[in-house]
Amino acid sequence: MDRRKFFKYGSLATVGATMLSPIEIFGKEVDFINKGGTAKNIIMLISDGMSTGTLNMADLYLNRKTGKGSNWMQLYKDNRVSRALMDTASASSIVTDSAAASSAFGGGFRVKNGSLNISPEGKPNMPIWQKFKKAGKKAGCVTTVTITHATPAGFCVCNDSRNSQPEIAEEYLKQGFDVLLGGGDQYFNSEKREDKKNVYKDYENKGYKVVKSRNQLQNAPDNKPLLGVFDHDALPYTVDRNSSKELQEQMPTLAEMAQKAIDCMKSNPKGFVLQIEGGKVDWAAHANDISGLIYDQVAFDEAVKVAIDFAEKDKNTLVIITTDHGNANPGVIYGKNANDGFDSIQNYTHTNEYLLNQIHAEDSTSKIKDLIQQVNGISLTDEDATHIQSYYSGLEKGEEGLYNYKKLPFKTYSEIQRKYNSVGWISMDHSADYVELAMFGPGSENLKPFIKNTDIHYLMLESAGVENKF
Amino acid sequence: MDRRKFFKYGSLATVGATMLSPIEIFGKEVDFINKGGTAKNIIMLISDGMSTGTLNMADLYLNRKTGKGSNWMQLYKDNRVSRALMDTASASSIVTDSAAASSAFGGGFRVKNGSLNISPEGKPNMPIWQKFKKAGKKAGCVTTVTITHATPAGFCVCNDSRNSQPEIAEEYLKQGFDVLLGGGDQYFNSEKREDKKNVYKDYENKGYKVVKSRNQLQNAPDNKPLLGVFDHDALPYTVDRNSSKELQEQMPTLAEMAQKAIDCMKSNPKGFVLQIEGGKVDWAAHANDISGLIYDQVAFDEAVKVAIDFAEKDKNTLVIITTDHGNANPGVIYGKNANDGFDSIQNYTHTNEYLLNQIHAEDSTSKIKDLIQQVNGISLTDEDATHIQSYYSGLEKGEEGLYNYKKLPFKTYSEIQRKYNSVGWISMDHSADYVELAMFGPGSENLKPFIKNTDIHYLMLESAGVENKF
Repeated sequence: MDRRKFFKYGSLATVGATMLSPIEIFGKEVDFINKGGTAKNIIMLISDGMSTGTLNMADLYLNRKTGKGSNWMQLYKDNRVSRALMDTASASSIVTDSAAASSAFGGGFRVKNGSLNISPEGKPNMPIWQKFKKAGKKAGCVTTVTITHATPAGFCVCNDSRNSQPEIAEEYLKQGFDVLLGGGDQYFNSEKREDKKNVYKDYENKGYKVVKSRNQLQNAPDNKPLLGVFDHDALPYTVDRNSSKELQEQMPTLAEMAQKAIDCMKSNPKGFVLQIEGGKVDWAAHANDISGLIYDQVAFDEAVKVAIDFAEKDKNTLVIITTDHGNANPGVIYGKNANDGFDSIQNYTHTNEYLLNQIHAEDSTSKIKDLIQQVNGISLTDEDATHIQSYYSGLEKGEEGLYNYKKLPFKTYSEIQRKYNSVGWISMDHSADYVELAMFGPGSENLKPFIKNTDIHYLMLESAGVENKF
Repeated sequence: MDRRKFFKYGSLATVGATMLSPIEIFGKEVDFINKGGTAKNIIMLISDGMSTGTLNMADLYLNRKTGKGSNWMQLYKDNRVSRALMDTASASSIVTDSAAASSAFGGGFRVKNGSLNISPEGKPNMPIWQKFKKAGKKAGCVTTVTITHATPAGFCVCNDSRNSQPEIAEEYLKQGFDVLLGGGDQYFNSEKREDKKNVYKDYENKGYKVVKSRNQLQNAPDNKPLLGVFDHDALPYTVDRNSSKELQEQMPTLAEMAQKAIDCMKSNPKGFVLQIEGGKVDWAAHANDISGLIYDQVAFDEAVKVAIDFAEKDKNTLVIITTDHGNANPGVIYGKNANDGFDSIQNYTHTNEYLLNQIHAEDSTSKIKDLIQQVNGISLTDEDATHIQSYYSGLEKGEEGLYNYKKLPFKTYSEIQRKYNSVGWISMDHSADYVELAMFGPGSENLKPFIKNTDIHYLMLESAGVENKF
């Protein structure tokens, strides 16, 4: 009997008395791939606005539904990564926004909330994907929100304001990034841009393949720079996509975009760098939209698998898996029905965003109740149905909130939902919590267990053996 | 120029251009003490009900106030510990209570919420401090709540119900634990017990030194078993103690109790095991009481230092630092005044518990406003003052809640406070979040990065070289 089993189960005489399955519970040294080597490629995965509770709920959701947890947690169970807690503050606040957060990774310095790699004194910090381009690597970003959004932009450009998305669409081209996949047609399409510029045309003129659907993406050549824009603004939430054949045909998953981006860049002799953002995890947290949150975190987790599968074979790829900040600190709350409540989310067919958009001023409470029964399996009380209705009839003032352009009653509805699904939220905004970060591959052995977000910038350069002289 | 600085700052030509201080941001192998050795002693520190946000806020609070963060985080910065995320579920729920949580550590098996080491089938699981006593070690517990509370009890006894505190007080004596320090006079004092037993007397008759004040504790001999009970129920919150000379004289800190417990047991030839609980971190979370929470987490952190300082010199001591479950997932929320709001907590002189106990039915709103100004530095609106008053005048029904015997308006007040201090909470109860765990000393090298709470039981036995045949 080996030593570990001996300590776990006692001597042979008592082994029969235990009912535990013989899993290996004790660790060994982390199984580093290519320890001390140089990272030719870097893939950084960012689940935007992922509190610890979001990571936990996605793992728990998968575990309870399929018997197997998330790919991210499996890396921990297999002892294959190094980990850190990360302080995510910005130059202006202990609670960062996504622009300052991405700039900390991207520029190596903290900037004020809202800014993209412009220091508080107004000086630009060169973004890391530009540095790696200069070092001969290919560089790209894929995201489920607009490709010009704060998180990809922070690795790619300098700009006073994260809101300059039309400008950022053009700046990407100027810098010549190799793969750009996400949403944001409004920033490229001449019919939607204020200045009526056809930015797609500019990309094509510079040799890019431009794709606008999942099918086109899959058929795009791997030997040309690639721009893929699949929606007017952000891509749809995963749970809504899962319930629509049409969306499934039109929209690639984050994992599919990640795979395509890798395929397009992997043959470059000097390697590639790729950012993969699960951008709508943050949006769902802002809306306290639980199925938006969990299903998009699961979609992010499938992209983690794509990255790890590649890195495992390649052996020269550093993979960083993290978030840029917490958001809303969601969690399953103690109570008699915590298990059943949490499991009921498995049957949600759509986001709260979808659901609340289906309700109209003239709808009866019974129509509202039917809809909620159908989407969430919840038998709403008349009182709660009337409460929701009051936001549409104008009796209650519409709710304010980031990404809540239509002033839908997200908070009210999530508070009603909580009675059935046991999930609570501290707010509809970011939090200062330290966040989880994991690394796999060459360079990961250099990670300290507590870091600042800016440290990642230097760790990427060091791991890739790229001197910071730009 | 060394390689790390080279990558961080670029070549010599560009070094002058950076403004970064030359801190060492990259890691090295964890500096394990006595790697592969046997843990003669084990100290397990449990901050009860500590969500990630609680750990974060205590570190941030200390950093912003003193320029130096928590001892716990310093261990990470110095790369001196191994870490894991821990799944804290119980046999009956994905969200555990403290009894089932302590039983998972203590008995090595998950039990139903409310139970102490009694399996769902009704069978007892031998608690780990009993196992270590049989192996010749001394064993003790110190806590800021009643010494008979769920967390110490789960390491020491088997009982169908965590509520059997009078019985547990007697069971400890039967088992002969060596140091027991905390609150709970009501379970030992003949005038307070229903059965009128003088349990103190029973302890004295068996050779224990019994102490009831800080001074008595400090003067107690180190060569006798020790029972210290310092309050009727739990000990006062740290922030309230800090504002009262009388409480400071009567009540030891958690760090002082920890030090005394170590001093009483450290000379035992076969070593000792000690549990140190920051029990009121959980109570503060249940009350959404921010200064209760942060100051008690800081007090817990001072006990971490006591344990690490001892282990560092001793070299044969495994220190485990963790929590049993999340609670209320508090966090600092994004907003213009997040920094100032959070910093204002530095000036709070008392807990919300103290404050809300000072208000009486006949108090005017202006008296309430004065009190809140004095305790929290908040200039309350008339509307909010009237709202609080309504709970005392009987216009509003008193709030329910664990440990809220007087039905005080904790939730209402924390929601008012949030407008000033930027801290939010998901609930007034435990969460299912995975939690942070760190280990220092021999055995810590065996920690996997993701574990179940039950794994800790076997890791303690293995680290101590104690075969599990009882």
